[in-house]
Amino acid sequence: MSDSERNWASHRDAKATKMAAVQPLLSGKYAKTNDAKQILEALISSGDKVVLEGDNQKQASFLSKILASVDPEKVHDLHMIMSSISRPEHLDIFEDGIASKMDFSFAGPQSTRVSQMIADGTLQVGDIHTYLELYARLFVDLIPNVVLVAADKADRDGNLYTGYNTEETPVIVESAAFKDGIVIVQVNEVVDKLPRVDIPADWIDVVIPADEPYQLEPLFTRDPQNITELQILMGMMAIRGIYEKHNVQSVNHGVGFNTAAIELLLPTYGEQLGLKGKIVPNWEVNPTPTLIPAIESGWIQSIHSFGGEVGMEKYIAARPDVFFVGKDGTMRSNRAFGQMAGQYALDMFVGSTLQIDQFGNSSTVTNGRLSGFGGAPNMGSNPTGRRHSTPAWQSLRPDNDPLGKGQKLVVQMVETFGSSKKPVFVDHLDAEEVRKEAKLANVPIMIYSEDTTHIVTEEGIAYLYKTDSMAERQAAIEAIAGVTPVGLRSNAKTLNDLRARGIVALPEDLGVRRTDAKRSLLAAQNMEDLVKWSKGLYNPPAKFRSWS
Amino acid sequence: MSDSERNWASHRDAKATKMAAVQPLLSGKYAKTNDAKQILEALISSGDKVVLEGDNQKQASFLSKILASVDPEKVHDLHMIMSSISRPEHLDIFEDGIASKMDFSFAGPQSTRVSQMIADGTLQVGDIHTYLELYARLFVDLIPNVVLVAADKADRDGNLYTGYNTEETPVIVESAAFKDGIVIVQVNEVVDKLPRVDIPADWIDVVIPADEPYQLEPLFTRDPQNITELQILMGMMAIRGIYEKHNVQSVNHGVGFNTAAIELLLPTYGEQLGLKGKIVPNWEVNPTPTLIPAIESGWIQSIHSFGGEVGMEKYIAARPDVFFVGKDGTMRSNRAFGQMAGQYALDMFVGSTLQIDQFGNSSTVTNGRLSGFGGAPNMGSNPTGRRHSTPAWQSLRPDNDPLGKGQKLVVQMVETFGSSKKPVFVDHLDAEEVRKEAKLANVPIMIYSEDTTHIVTEEGIAYLYKTDSMAERQAAIEAIAGVTPVGLRSNAKTLNDLRARGIVALPEDLGVRRTDAKRSLLAAQNMEDLVKWSKGLYNPPAKFRSWS
Repeated sequence: MSDSERNWASHRDAKATKMAAVQPLLSGKYAKTNDAKQILEALISSGDKVVLEGDNQKQASFLSKILASVDPEKVHDLHMIMSSISRPEHLDIFEDGIASKMDFSFAGPQSTRVSQMIADGTLQVGDIHTYLELYARLFVDLIPNVVLVAADKADRDGNLYTGYNTEETPVIVESAAFKDGIVIVQVNEVVDKLPRVDIPADWIDVVIPADEPYQLEPLFTRDPQNITELQILMGMMAIRGIYEKHNVQSVNHGVGFNTAAIELLLPTYGEQLGLKGKIVPNWEVNPTPTLIPAIESGWIQSIHSFGGEVGMEKYIAARPDVFFVGKDGTMRSNRAFGQMAGQYALDMFVGSTLQIDQFGNSSTVTNGRLSGFGGAPNMGSNPTGRRHSTPAWQSLRPDNDPLGKGQKLVVQMVETFGSSKKPVFVDHLDAEEVRKEAKLANVPIMIYSEDTTHIVTEEGIAYLYKTDSMAERQAAIEAIAGVTPVGLRSNAKTLNDLRARGIVALPEDLGVRRTDAKRSLLAAQNMEDLVKWSKGLYNPPAKFRSWS
Repeated sequence: MSDSERNWASHRDAKATKMAAVQPLLSGKYAKTNDAKQILEALISSGDKVVLEGDNQKQASFLSKILASVDPEKVHDLHMIMSSISRPEHLDIFEDGIASKMDFSFAGPQSTRVSQMIADGTLQVGDIHTYLELYARLFVDLIPNVVLVAADKADRDGNLYTGYNTEETPVIVESAAFKDGIVIVQVNEVVDKLPRVDIPADWIDVVIPADEPYQLEPLFTRDPQNITELQILMGMMAIRGIYEKHNVQSVNHGVGFNTAAIELLLPTYGEQLGLKGKIVPNWEVNPTPTLIPAIESGWIQSIHSFGGEVGMEKYIAARPDVFFVGKDGTMRSNRAFGQMAGQYALDMFVGSTLQIDQFGNSSTVTNGRLSGFGGAPNMGSNPTGRRHSTPAWQSLRPDNDPLGKGQKLVVQMVETFGSSKKPVFVDHLDAEEVRKEAKLANVPIMIYSEDTTHIVTEEGIAYLYKTDSMAERQAAIEAIAGVTPVGLRSNAKTLNDLRARGIVALPEDLGVRRTDAKRSLLAAQNMEDLVKWSKGLYNPPAKFRSWS
């Protein structure tokens, strides 16, 4: 009935041939640090799909450096799959011809260069993804030939300890290990006995001790001393007008000073309001230091994390009732499961953005910077497959539809003018222009209007989920858009009508006094206060230390 | 600043106390089969959140039997978390008072009894979930105290081999192992050396050899001899009018004879149409035997699976280019990652249902049967966090919105009258009544109208994504609803208008001749044919064997 000659194990055979070729360089699964280039040149074929681990914070920096050093005559036109484009050599390989195509999620630190390289044709973009969909494709139509990942430690057999920064390593490894892909891991250290096994040796092909520990950045640390009184005002409004109003139990906070302000207001302003024990016991969030006062004050029952945060290791180890910690006393983070939880299990996502258009669509892609998406579109969207109900979710249920259901709260918090003094509220997103330049199929919108339920500015809160038409939605946005061109279209009559109908709330409508929005209301004023709250367990990175 | 007396490791201490109490019964991590009841009574506290593994096919049947035997004086009012309520004792524990509350996903075999027990107050439902959101909550607001799971083999240290039926075991274990929950596993066999490690021993607390292998059912096997010519007609229409039209590359097929017909038509009818190599190379689907002819004919490049299917073990082991297979030669399935892929990485979901209302909402919850959801709402929904584009997805992009984007194809295939001769198309879903009886927050709709892009019946295809209003959507549904009460509202003028505008297609509009829809068009007529196609590698369970 079919071609009986077909080899149904061609991938396995190809892998066996490659592995046999490097056998002289291996002792068990171990290769020497100095042989890394030769190993990669032998195990990676031109045109291969290659996943290079680059989480937000953790980078497979030794392997990316070595990959950038391979001979483009031997290895070229790779199809790279990376959740984060973070290091210069992540793009150097495209200039050298080692790689030609890229599927990615986030390009924060390299976003300007990404835009330039797309424009001059050096970099061909497959597509831009949110993290979870990029992982999803590793099992469907982007199954990798080779994965290059980073771990803290390996034992002699090749079992891996990813420890505190487990991040995305397990999901990447699984996609290759069970489809005859080749799994190559850099490790900081080789030990006889691991603190715990995070990934079994059976899943690993080659272990290479790195010349230095993998790169790790404290990206999610925000110094309280940089929180402004405007941000405190917005935080107070959010706590009253959203957290309390909707009885929010579970939340993800994006990274920024707006949400840091909320975290530091819970033990003070939240306590004054009598909300302790009533809101936000459950979090899916990285272990940001500004959470420490709320944890110490007993506000938080559980935190599951996508990744680690430098300096929080000892504090987390001492708080296993709150964080996900293994028997070895160290956190296990998991970016794939964290994003799954962030999408499906939370009452609310609170984020920020660089631009919001007149309809409520938002994007961090601005002219000349193709920054990608990260996890925001996943958590900042309403998963229509969700079937369980919570009071917060149900509070957004439409009144007029007997078959209706609730909705996730997706909140954007922005000051009407950004740090560069440019208006955040615009008629058209820069992303529309970027779409044309980068020849993308769709406008790179971070969070769509239809998913955005609330916008908070220093002017007030727009309850977008209550609007019945796009015109009303636009009016609600205008009402809180301050003196931006969009905001100037608002007028007192419309504003008062929207306030009367509960579609817009100003601080006074929420019982929030602008004069109370003082820095003294923050539970911690600076990094040193956070260290004190932590009883000395939090150890800020040097760049955040202003004291002795 | 805070209560310095607080114990931040109370869960760890509680676990240590319990583990110390059972230490006399353990040798390493091993307990004796006969001590299982005593172990559970000591390690599970009244009121605990307990996950009992029950995938679709694989059941932790030894542990569920033992749980049902514990003394309700010692262990009562458990909050059970189960993806599938499949076995009688899953509900017996509620009648005995051992458990009182249930959060679940699917209750197929026990759906009638679930309804009765809710009505009489024996069973309190937390909520009904799709699989992925239930797993998501294990990390947020349903963090388990104890998990009871099943594995094939364990080694002396307690490393686990879940092998072919990995299913949901890893995600359940991870949620407990890193939050001081207790992980108890039943194993079929204890060996010195595992074929591979699927879950590291560090994550496991107690291993109990079971008295018999865990229950495993071939739920997804469909005998081709039961496929009707009406189903073949629908399959032909779907291939022409959806798979070909939208250039579908990646798909999940629900379980049923409709989709089995499509699988068996690809190598025949699909080949005649010249579609080989052009459509559906990538699948997220369980290894259903009716896929064998399409695989053997070279239609399919990759299949990732949620779970295994009894009898397919040897066939899969011999086709590692297609399936996800470990170095040991056995498949690794993964229900959590499979659902992630099914949600975010696929062009299309094709399902079936018991009722569709006049608006296009569908449900398998019918009077007296609270069957739950399984994975369908997750895969049969349009994830608005998706940002990557494919031709199929993009083909549903609205023309009139410059900021618009594509959509997942969500297809319902139903005959207008179900197997019980009841109309599938109804004005109101039985689910509306069930909502009231079971006191659910929302109507238990499987797939919402807004997510449903196509409906296929024996009459034709309704392209719902092309409709501009609910009235037009209703007219399109009526046009293909046959002589059901809903269908009788259609008229020739409207039908012809809808056909002219491409909103409805009849077989003749698609170039499908009804007279060609013969059983002889199926690539396999019966189970024996499937075995032949597999070159004897497929080994059907006894109940599917009609030959010697």
